[in-house]
Formats: sequence, structure tokens, C-alpha cells
Amino acid sequence: MSLLVVGSVAFDSIETPKGKREKIIGGSANYACLAASYFTYSRMVGVVGNDYPEDIVHIMNSKGIDTSGLKFEEGETFSWGGVYSEDFSERTTTFTKLNVFKSFSPELLESHAKSNYTLLGNIHPEIQMKVFDQLENPKLVACDTMNLWINTTLPQLKEILEKIDILLVNDEEAAMLSGNSNLSNSALKILEMGPKFVVIKKGVHGAIIFGEEIEFHVPAFPVDEVVDPTGAGDTFAGGFMSYIAMEDSISVEHLKRAMVAGTILASFCVEDFGVERLLNISAEDINNRLLNFSKLTLYDDTPLLK
Amino acid sequence: MSLLVVGSVAFDSIETPKGKREKIIGGSANYACLAASYFTYSRMVGVVGNDYPEDIVHIMNSKGIDTSGLKFEEGETFSWGGVYSEDFSERTTTFTKLNVFKSFSPELLESHAKSNYTLLGNIHPEIQMKVFDQLENPKLVACDTMNLWINTTLPQLKEILEKIDILLVNDEEAAMLSGNSNLSNSALKILEMGPKFVVIKKGVHGAIIFGEEIEFHVPAFPVDEVVDPTGAGDTFAGGFMSYIAMEDSISVEHLKRAMVAGTILASFCVEDFGVERLLNISAEDINNRLLNFSKLTLYDDTPLLK
Repeated sequence: MSLLVVGSVAFDSIETPKGKREKIIGGSANYACLAASYFTYSRMVGVVGNDYPEDIVHIMNSKGIDTSGLKFEEGETFSWGGVYSEDFSERTTTFTKLNVFKSFSPELLESHAKSNYTLLGNIHPEIQMKVFDQLENPKLVACDTMNLWINTTLPQLKEILEKIDILLVNDEEAAMLSGNSNLSNSALKILEMGPKFVVIKKGVHGAIIFGEEIEFHVPAFPVDEVVDPTGAGDTFAGGFMSYIAMEDSISVEHLKRAMVAGTILASFCVEDFGVERLLNISAEDINNRLLNFSKLTLYDDTPLLK
Repeated sequence: MSLLVVGSVAFDSIETPKGKREKIIGGSANYACLAASYFTYSRMVGVVGNDYPEDIVHIMNSKGIDTSGLKFEEGETFSWGGVYSEDFSERTTTFTKLNVFKSFSPELLESHAKSNYTLLGNIHPEIQMKVFDQLENPKLVACDTMNLWINTTLPQLKEILEKIDILLVNDEEAAMLSGNSNLSNSALKILEMGPKFVVIKKGVHGAIIFGEEIEFHVPAFPVDEVVDPTGAGDTFAGGFMSYIAMEDSISVEHLKRAMVAGTILASFCVEDFGVERLLNISAEDINNRLLNFSKLTLYDDTPLLK
């Protein structure tokens, strides 16, 4: 099955301890769609200015991503700048220019409205709701959010949480949303708000999915050299949702493998600046990394005592 | 095989968000030996004052722990007090009275000096070396340490690191000792100092073992209610080393299971104050928890892509 991805498409200017890049391609929809491209056909919904290069769109198409939902508008593309601290533990935003993204209010194409699997990137909850309301046959809808919306638009966020199936948040956002810093307790409180599943992303400490019949902990894949962590969360989300769409199943076993798929894709993302590494992964790269990951995480679970 | 445990034996006064206990049994040797008692015969080496209750010693003996290396001296037992913050993320020491532990300088009994497997608890590195030098046939020696020794006795700590096989530290200590905050890099630097393996404990985020042929990540077991985290690290160390001693093997598979064994034992430890929960675990409890843990962590690792 295909995956519909609604999110930001941007120019990023990034400085990390490993170097600096100006005006490279970014945004949650780009990261998520590229990650998704390895598992399924994905459809990107977003908005860019007329300064956005056509050849990037062609590259996306060449990866099997449908960009017919990417709207070109008069004006400049959303752009963002950030600087990472020496150990990557902190990120400072140097500028945010919303530009054409400020009035982003997507009208889905007819074929897109029929999507069964949808990932609503981190945008205003009212826009997430507007997209949700256009879906004709939503089978599984995931949404991302951030501290800004938890702080400023909590009632609207709670409304969309009642509708969607999976919320993806990081540990700080989960604590903020639930008012509880214990991860298990905060997950239970979030599940009470509506979603069937909540995925809590813990950065270098991995991720956890909680649901009525599932709790699964996955460590991060320890890459040799982190170059740029930007987009790792969106890449995780894209890998996770597209694996589910590919299997067309939310069985416990498939959800677990989807968490692993998201982890593997995110580990490639951080190895280079922006989406660079995501453009050039082979199926063999992915399978080999899973093989390495299984050596790092799997163990013989026969009883410890007789 | 049996496990020799050298460490502190103490009275603890603990306050956590779940309650308060005065003058309960603590110390690294008590936690590690009780954890070890589920897998193997353990021998405790430590010192207490004449205020230490004989019936506690009898309880240890009833768990199959050899306390012939526990020395009673004139004076008072080492005692420590600590208060945990509301979310357990911080611990403040309210008092430390070393008492008889101040001059702790163990002379091993002849039978103890023959031990193949030894755990040197978090004590002055010179005392760790003194014990190491008495071992006649050390097969595998693990040692714990802390920021105090890294800051104040680094040359002596580096000497013992050249001798021992496994260093157990938490993530902050690993960063401090290696001068590197990236866990993989810091592990590599510590391995260059001598040990064959380094185990980095990350609290609620689990633990990692690094060695020439092994890297294995294990999440923490998410307990329903943490009551008192005191001793969880020592319990992990005791469970880990005693599982290795029981199997008499450091194969990759056995080391992985030892990490899981330490994780399982530590998860029981935090469920009640002090060593309380460690006194009453059944083999069935341990096997059932492993079964639950495997559901939380294992996944099907067949290739993600065809």
C-alpha cells in the first residue's frame, strides 16, 4: 500500500561539529518520503516557493515518490537554520522563515484522499485535522507534533489525537503532553487521549512503542560517525509508517519490525548532511545493517534458571 | 563456579518519592551477593562494625552466601544517607560516615584467594589492586569505580584497569574517564586502557557491553513502580558476573545473557527499598520476567527487503 506524507519542504542551513551546509534540501516531508521510498510508494503533500529547484523534484520522482501534491506558490520556500553543540546534545535554531509555508493549508488531490496510510508531519494541529477530514478511507493515520503545539494549541492537538491512530513524539514532548516524566506512565496517559499507539523517540537511546497489546523497546543503531542528526526523527517516522504500509499489517510482529525499520533508516540519515545519505541506500545496505543490528540487540531467551 | 565479591557493607537511610527508610541494610557487597545468589555460590568480603546485626548475616547464609570474609571490627558500620528527587533523576547524599570502612584493607582467606571469578566493588583502586594481587588464579575479574576515584586517584585507577578484565561504569563515569561523551568512542578509549570488556550502565536507558568481539545493547526492564533505585547498579553487576560464573563461559552468547540476567535482577531490586525485594525472588519470577523482557525487546530479524 502507498503512504501519504503531509509535511514541510524546506531549505536548511546546518552547522554541526562535522561541518556546515547552506540552503540544502530539508523538511519533514522530504526526509519521510525518502525513507519511505525504500519500502513503498509514497505521496508528498507540501508547499514550496518558486525558488525551489525543479531537479530536486525530479530526483524525488526518480525514487518513486509522487510529488503531484507538492504545490509551488509565489514567494520563497520555508527555510530554517540550526547549529548543533560539540556533542550533538543541543541544537540552537538560528533562523526560521516560514515564507510560503505560513499559509500551508493542503487540499488533497482525489487520488491522495483515498490513501489508507497517512503520516501527518509536525504542523499546526488544525491543519492536521483539515487533512484528516479530507481522508476518505483512513486505515492508519500517524501524526507527529512538537512542544510549540503542546504549549500553544493544546485543545486543537487533543482533538486530532482523538482521531488518529499513532502519535510520534520525543521523550520531552511526551512528558510535556502527559504531565508525567516516567515514560510508561506518560505513554498510558497519551493513549487515554485517543491514539491506539504512541511511539516515544529517545534519540541516541532509541525508541519505544506502546499500545494495548504491544510494548517494544528498540535501541538506536550506533553509527560510527554522526555527521548531522537533522531529520532523523522524520526519517524514523517515514521508515516506520512505510514498512507498515508495505506489509499492510499492524500485527505485533510487524509493528516491531516497523520500529526496527525506522531505526535502521534513521541511522543512515545521520551519517551525512541533510537528505544526502537517504538518496543512496541500497536494499543490501538496509538488510546488512539489520543483520548488524540484530547482533547488537538479539539474545538467546531460553530460561535463565532450570 | 563461585563468585568472590569485595565491596561495602553498610547501613543506608533512604528517602524516595515512595517513602523513607532508616538504617536499612545496604552496600555494594550485599546487593551484588544477593543478586549472585540466584545463579551461583558467592563469597562476600567486607567489613562491618560490632553494631551490625548477626541475623542479617544468617539471612545471607540462608541464601547460600559465604560470609566468612565479612570482618567484624570495633566501631560502627559504614553508613550513608540519600534523598531522591521527585522523578528519581537526581540523588543527593545527606551524609556519609565511613566508620570502620575507612581502613578497609582486606586479607583474603586462602579459599577465597583461589576464586576464578571476582567482582571488585567500587572502592579505592589501591584496595582493588591489593585484592587483585592476592588472587592466585584469576580467570575473570570485574571492577566497578566512581567519579571520586576518576577525579582523585586516576593513576592508581589506570593501574588496576591494566590488570582487570571487565570495567563496569555508568555513562557519566565513562565520559569522565575517557574524555569523550560519545558512548562508542568512550568505550574504545577505555578498552585501550586495558580491560577486555567495558559495561556502560545507562540507568533507565539500559546498558551496553563493548569488547573486541562483542557490542550488545540491552534496554532496562520497565518496572511498574520504582520504589528505590539504590543498589541497582551493584545488583546488575552481581547478576551479570554470577551468570558468567554459573556458565563458566565468556562466549558472546553467554555475555549477552549475562547482560540480560543483570538487567532482570536490577529490575527486581528497584521494586522495593534496599535489598528487600532481592531476598524474595523465585526462579519462576526470574524466568517469567525474562519471558516478559523478551516480548519487549526481541523481534523477527529476517531481511526487511527482498
